[in-house]
Amino acid sequence: MQIGELSERTGVAPATIKYYVREGLLPAGERLGGNRTEYSDAHEQRLRLVRAMLEIGQLSVASVRDVLAALDEPGAPIAATFDVAQQALSRAAVPDVSEPTAASLARVDALVARASWGDCDDNIGRDIAARVLDGFERAGFPLPDDYLDRYAEAAQVQAEADLGAVGLLPDRSRMTELMVVGTILGDPLALGLRRIAQAVVTNRRSTP
Amino acid sequence: MQIGELSERTGVAPATIKYYVREGLLPAGERLGGNRTEYSDAHEQRLRLVRAMLEIGQLSVASVRDVLAALDEPGAPIAATFDVAQQALSRAAVPDVSEPTAASLARVDALVARASWGDCDDNIGRDIAARVLDGFERAGFPLPDDYLDRYAEAAQVQAEADLGAVGLLPDRSRMTELMVVGTILGDPLALGLRRIAQAVVTNRRSTP
Repeated sequence: MQIGELSERTGVAPATIKYYVREGLLPAGERLGGNRTEYSDAHEQRLRLVRAMLEIGQLSVASVRDVLAALDEPGAPIAATFDVAQQALSRAAVPDVSEPTAASLARVDALVARASWGDCDDNIGRDIAARVLDGFERAGFPLPDDYLDRYAEAAQVQAEADLGAVGLLPDRSRMTELMVVGTILGDPLALGLRRIAQAVVTNRRSTP
Repeated sequence: MQIGELSERTGVAPATIKYYVREGLLPAGERLGGNRTEYSDAHEQRLRLVRAMLEIGQLSVASVRDVLAALDEPGAPIAATFDVAQQALSRAAVPDVSEPTAASLARVDALVARASWGDCDDNIGRDIAARVLDGFERAGFPLPDDYLDRYAEAAQVQAEADLGAVGLLPDRSRMTELMVVGTILGDPLALGLRRIAQAVVTNRRSTP
């Protein structure tokens, strides 16, 4: 397809598409001679992915480039690709407070052990969760372990759903793409549904 | 206590405490004559809450004022207070994309019906979840209903844990405060644990 059709299908302006090509976020189309450049379905899919990262994930162009490089690494284990994506997609979510305390890191490790999750020392989620525990503590509401265990249970339900959806896809490239999109979009999905569920449970329990 | 002790206990500089008083986020201390002003434990707790909203929730001063006004509304049903807090605390989380499509709103409504959650038309989470569905669709990965149902299940586990923790507190004012803190801090907690769980599940399933 020509750039006009690619633009129409994705809702991205031709000038923006050219900008993505210059920035290395999208491979150049195939030059057919004259002024014609041909784009494929793979271009369209890559463009959709780039838009999701930039607009919904609010990643910088540099971060999108990092994630795409990991996606395109030939023969990389899927878990390694996912790790790069997680790091890039999670930085904005880290609460902007001082380093987590050793006590909170230890609590997260204990939680991980109770959930039988194995080793997670390098996972960015460990640091995020520990900072949050510090935040609750400082706000004057230390969290009980039981509360954390319920949240871990919910996280596991989400992660199984994520991987289940990924497993339905036909090839590795689509699978890693969905991991990226799911990491970005799963957060606000979870947040939105948590808001609804909180209101539902509050209304059921509270006496007016 | 004097402002120096309040500052030491909370880690908030005296000039910042005075700024919060001027901005109406913290009631003034009791003037004891001379230059002495006395602050109570209630001041300390309110100050911790304000900090959590500003720093970790990254709310504006105006939004914090709205939430505090709802908290301090005498005799307001707890569900109404929670609703104001949810709105204020969720605005930043709404994906910055066009209005949700009618099709996605209908899918969220169907999901809510399957979860037996009752009416949620006014909940901000409905709009957020619908925008996310649009985002997945535009990224080229429409989500199956089954995936959404698992996320709803996880949200309910979280919400029950939230309300359970709130129910352990001695009075209404502490309960509504925890609802606010839990809404702000529960999001990154859930996000961090979801990251860990995703890595764990991916590592277990993927062949290297």
